Parts: sequence; structure tokens; C-alpha cells
Amino acid sequence: MARITLLTDFGTEDGFVGAIKGVLATHAPVARVEDISHAVPPGDVRKASLALGRYWRLYPPGTVHLVVIDPGVGTARRSLALRADERLLVGPDNGVFSSVFLKALEWEAVDLRPSEFLPAPDSDTFHGRDWFAPAAALLATGTPLDALGEDVSDPVVLPAVPSRRVGEWVVGEVVEVDRFGNLATNLPEDMARLAGEVCVGERWIPLRRTYGEAESGELLALMDSDHRVEVSVRDGSAARQLGVGVGAGVRIRIPPER
Amino acid sequence: MARITLLTDFGTEDGFVGAIKGVLATHAPVARVEDISHAVPPGDVRKASLALGRYWRLYPPGTVHLVVIDPGVGTARRSLALRADERLLVGPDNGVFSSVFLKALEWEAVDLRPSEFLPAPDSDTFHGRDWFAPAAALLATGTPLDALGEDVSDPVVLPAVPSRRVGEWVVGEVVEVDRFGNLATNLPEDMARLAGEVCVGERWIPLRRTYGEAESGELLALMDSDHRVEVSVRDGSAARQLGVGVGAGVRIRIPPER
Amino acid sequence: MARITLLTDFGTEDGFVGAIKGVLATHAPVARVEDISHAVPPGDVRKASLALGRYWRLYPPGTVHLVVIDPGVGTARRSLALRADERLLVGPDNGVFSSVFLKALEWEAVDLRPSEFLPAPDSDTFHGRDWFAPAAALLATGTPLDALGEDVSDPVVLPAVPSRRVGEWVVGEVVEVDRFGNLATNLPEDMARLAGEVCVGERWIPLRRTYGEAESGELLALMDSDHRVEVSVRDGSAARQLGVGVGAGVRIRIPPER
Repeated sequence: MARITLLTDFGTEDGFVGAIKGVLATHAPVARVEDISHAVPPGDVRKASLALGRYWRLYPPGTVHLVVIDPGVGTARRSLALRADERLLVGPDNGVFSSVFLKALEWEAVDLRPSEFLPAPDSDTFHGRDWFAPAAALLATGTPLDALGEDVSDPVVLPAVPSRRVGEWVVGEVVEVDRFGNLATNLPEDMARLAGEVCVGERWIPLRRTYGEAESGELLALMDSDHRVEVSVRDGSAARQLGVGVGAGVRIRIPPER
Repeated sequence: MARITLLTDFGTEDGFVGAIKGVLATHAPVARVEDISHAVPPGDVRKASLALGRYWRLYPPGTVHLVVIDPGVGTARRSLALRADERLLVGPDNGVFSSVFLKALEWEAVDLRPSEFLPAPDSDTFHGRDWFAPAAALLATGTPLDALGEDVSDPVVLPAVPSRRVGEWVVGEVVEVDRFGNLATNLPEDMARLAGEVCVGERWIPLRRTYGEAESGELLALMDSDHRVEVSVRDGSAARQLGVGVGAGVRIRIPPER
Repeated sequence: MARITLLTDFGTEDGFVGAIKGVLATHAPVARVEDISHAVPPGDVRKASLALGRYWRLYPPGTVHLVVIDPGVGTARRSLALRADERLLVGPDNGVFSSVFLKALEWEAVDLRPSEFLPAPDSDTFHGRDWFAPAAALLATGTPLDALGEDVSDPVVLPAVPSRRVGEWVVGEVVEVDRFGNLATNLPEDMARLAGEVCVGERWIPLRRTYGEAESGELLALMDSDHRVEVSVRDGSAARQLGVGVGAGVRIRIPPER
């Protein structure tokens, strides 16, 4: 059961995604194609990496994840095909696979090279259609990874933003805002549990176990589905209520017993 | 031909939908997954119910409709699996299935319970991935409904908003605004036909049979594809032209012969 | 491997697309359905035609492309099924197939007529569900084109906007703006290459071969993936930086040697 998923920043209305799907349908007619998203903000490699981190390993082994967030198309950036924990991935080497490289137990990657299998791209502006989609189709139809290019051992990996100790505080920041306005942070989960509350600006926000422990419209902190400390509003948007976004400072007081 | 459709309020760019699809691909690899929408406004159960009402029974018998509009995740709300007129549905018991319960000729529902088939969810914040998707995959792969939980006879059903008689008027309201700015109302179809016109605020709007009977930019009322009295503008948006939305008052004068 | 693609201006959240997909699943259960876009601006036939032009012929022969951008639903506009270069297409005769008619090496088209195969539509407001989707399903399941209607030799084709000579200039315009803010123009490719720069308003913009030859944030002109002269900003939006959109004037100075 060959399967190819598709994550881009193309929107859908210009027909670029249609072009990629047409190439996949032609080159890998048996593979099922599933949309993940085409609504990644243009060029937002970090956002795409976070999204990819949520699904790549939930798909069955052998799935090919095609990721085209490619602000550097036409520059010298490398292009990658990789196998990570039995899933295959194709896309530009610009950090979009950071979540994969950071989470995978094992991986191997190649820098895609033109070959008898994979002709050099026709365009310098649309490698999604002319280069990455044919490569994904080749992987989905059984071409071995090492037939597609040269080994890469140093792919681009965007570093995770660390939290840090400052006096009696652990200071971190908002690393992601989702569609619901939930603020995911890089605060350490264990210490947040001990502290029992999170501070955003001047607001102290209590840690709860579930949304159900807060009133409608009330701020709460909780562990999100990725095991991160998250600030939320029940039935509302914490981003809007607090007026903050990615990069905003958050902190917890270090519990005295530590 | 197992088929699972997906309606959520998750947007796509955070990768949450990708996570759900990954779970479906793993647990029901043969089932085809079709997107309905991920653009339901966050938590808008009524809107999702109206959308669901448009497609659930147009799909073939045996289709599984997964619906994750779940503002109450982590609270005590029940979770449902149901069979209605030979289609299967899975999602929270918060009114999102109202259209189904109101239209189905016959239905049976269960409150999902953890079991050997369906382990308790890992998270309290993402039941779409950890609870509803595995349940949908089980139904799509032939697990009987009654193996998944206890019978429910009193699911949450959002009442339809009634129109009412006030003197010589029937007074109703706008119950839905679609992407084109068409205003669907709860006015009675037969009486609107007799009255021949609809009043929104101070504007009298004539009833037509088709858009073709109005000029471009002209307001008209007509029977929509769900057999409701709808106020529209040919080649335009009635919502914008009239400056009204869901809940706005509409009325017709009761024909004298009745 | 029957395959149906879907391009509409319906958005997804109202469930209209779900209704169309339900009809396709019922009438052509084996066909795979792939979304192209549902985000075409309401009624924007020209935009849809440009998008369609990007993918229709990249899909394999036999693919059915269903296109429902139908601002004239309920008027006397004809409805078309066509075969163009071995791909099949279904939708209203309002210019939405212009790119196909302009590019196809050969085509034949019919005006859809009610028949034993294709009953007259139930509604006058939702032909996507009641008329075009059943027709697409018929084509995907092998019904011959000429069984569906009467030959059409004069479909609606929106004319391409020409550029023109004015003194020492070739004057054209922006014909499309994509999600990234790139400005596609109708300037002649060969003459732009010789001129080496493009003028938008008072700004002279140099022609480059790739994005990589410009600095981040710098304006450049280049040949886009559809072989048009395009004005772009590396890592940015030319539409925003120049404050222009579709219809804006662009020009090149005619090279003296011509």
C-alpha cells in the first residue's frame, strides 16, 4: 500500500499543488496521495517542521512524506531524500526536517542528484513539481534511497530554543501558537509540575490536568499532546487573551525543594 | 470499499489533521480517507452539524464519518459512535450530530468505552488522534458498533430554531451564512411561496425561482438546495449587501387567504 | 485506475464539497477523488482557468477533472463535458476551461443534456452536486462522452490579455498574482531576455536566471515555471513591496537591435 503525504506552503488556489499531484499520479499511479496541509505560512520552515513532527511517524512504515517549503528554490541549497525510522521523506535541506532528525532513532539521507531515474529539473522556480515530486514517486514505487543521490551526514537542523535558569526562575518562551490560540512553551515539564503555575508577563496561570478543570474563558496551563507545557484558555484563545505570540517570554519559579 | 471522511475545526497547518490521518492509515490501511473540511470555526458545533447534514447520507452505506469538533475535550462529555441510516459516525456528544439525529429514519448510538479493542486515550487534549480516530478505524475495519461502548438513547441534539407567528407576520431568522454570503432562513417554505416576498429589516425581497431571474447585483429570495428559504444576491453576497449574519431577523407577511 | 479531481470556489466548511464527494463515492465508488482546491475566490472563473491550466495535462490520460466555479448556476449557461488531449473535464461553459481550449492539441466537447444516464438536476442552485458530479462519475466509470450531450464547437473562451507596442516600449500587464506575491505578466519572453530588465511603475527590475542571483528582499524578474516573465522578491512578496495587483501595467524597452 504505497502512500505519499503532501505538506506545502503553496496554498491550493493557484494550482501548484494540483501540478504536484498530477506528477505523482503519473509517476506513481498506485500510490495514495494524502494532503497534510498547503496552508503553512510562506517560507515558514520552522512551522512546517513542527507540523511534520506531529505526523511523520504515525503513518505506517514505508510511507513517503513529501515536504515542499522551499524559499531557497533556485539557490544552492541541497535537496534531500531520507529514511528515518522506516518512513521516507523528500524535500529541501533547509531545516524543514529538523523534527525528524531530532526525534528519529535512526536515519540515513542522500542529497538528490540528477540521474537516469531522476532527470534534472526543468525549472529553477518549481522544484516541487519538477524535482521533489518525481523523487517521491520513485521512492513510493520502490527505488532504493541510495540510487537517488550521495550520502549526507550533516543536514540542516534548526536548534530547539532552550529554556534557561535566571536566579530563582526558569525562563523560556512560546515556541508555537496553534489554530486555537494555545501557546506551547519550552518550559521543562517536570519543573512546571512542581511549580504548579506558569507566569506570562504579569499573569500567574495555574497548572491544570485537563481543560475540564477550568471555567469557560479561564486561563490555564497544562501538558499538551506533545508533552509540552502549554498555556490555554478554555473555549477561547490564550494568544488573543494575553496578546502574545511565538517568542513571548514565559517563566516558572524554581520550586524551593530543588 | 471502506471509506472514512474527516470533518474538524483543526485547520491543517499545525499537523493535527496529519496525526489523525497517520493513525487512520496505521489502523485501517485499506480504508480511503476523504477530507470534508478542517476549516470549521473553532468549536462551532452548530456550523459543523449543518455541514454534516449536507453530506453524511450522500456517501454510500458503510461509510464512516469522523467528526472532531471537540471544545469540551478533557471534560466529562461523552463520546459517541453511531449508525444512522446505514452510515457510521464517530465524535463527541456535544450536538455536532444534531442534523443526523434530526434527519435519520433510524439510528443507534453507543458511548465509547475503553476496551481490549480501544485503549483509553493517551492524552486529555487530543482525543481526535488518541480516541476518535482509532474508533473510526475499528468501525471501518468491521468491528461491530456494540463492541465499542454502552447504548446511548439521549444524545445531545441542538434544537432547530423555530419561526413563529406574530400578528400578521411569520417571524424567523437567518440560521446559516455560507461562503457566498447567502442567508439561509428558517421561514416556512410553503408560506414564503404564497407570500412571494421576504422582508429583512426594511428591505422587501422578491421570491424568484432561480438566480437567472435576477439581475447581477440584485437581491432575491429563493429555495436553496436544502429546501430552505434563502436570501441571496446574484453575483454577490447578501450578507455583505444587507450587513446581516446568523441570528438576524427575517419575516414574511401571512397571505390573507390562509 | 479511475481518478476524479475537484476544483471549486465552495470553501469546505459549509459541507457543499462533502456533498459532491458523497455523490462521487456513490456513483463512482472505485474512482479516487483528489482535491485540487476549494479556495478559488467566489465566481473567479479566470483564476480557476489559470489554476486548471497548471495541472490538467500533468494527470494521466483518462483522469476526469471536475470544475465547479459556477456563478451562473440557474441561468441559461450551458454545461460542458469535454475530452482534451486524453483528459476529461466537466463543468459550466463560462470560460473556466479557457486554458484547456487554448492549450489542447485536440478537443471535443458536449453540452450536457438530461438522459436516462443523467437525470435533470433536482435543484437550480447546486448543479455541482446534482448535475456535474453525476456527469463526472459517469465519465469516470466509462460512459462515452457523446452519450452525455450534444456537440459544442463554440465554448466560452476568455481571451488572453495581449501586450502591445507603444513607441519604443512593449507594454503589458500583471495577469496573475500567486500566493507568494509573485506577479506573472504577459510580456514577451524573448524580448524581455534581450531587454534584460522590466519596468513596473517607476521601478526598473533586473532580469535574473534564478532567485539565487538576488539578495533576500531584492526585486527581480525571471522566467516562471509557466515560461512567463514574472516579477518577484526573494523571500518576500512583490505584490506587497510594489503595491500592485492583477491589471497593473508593466513594460520593457524594445532592444535597439530589433
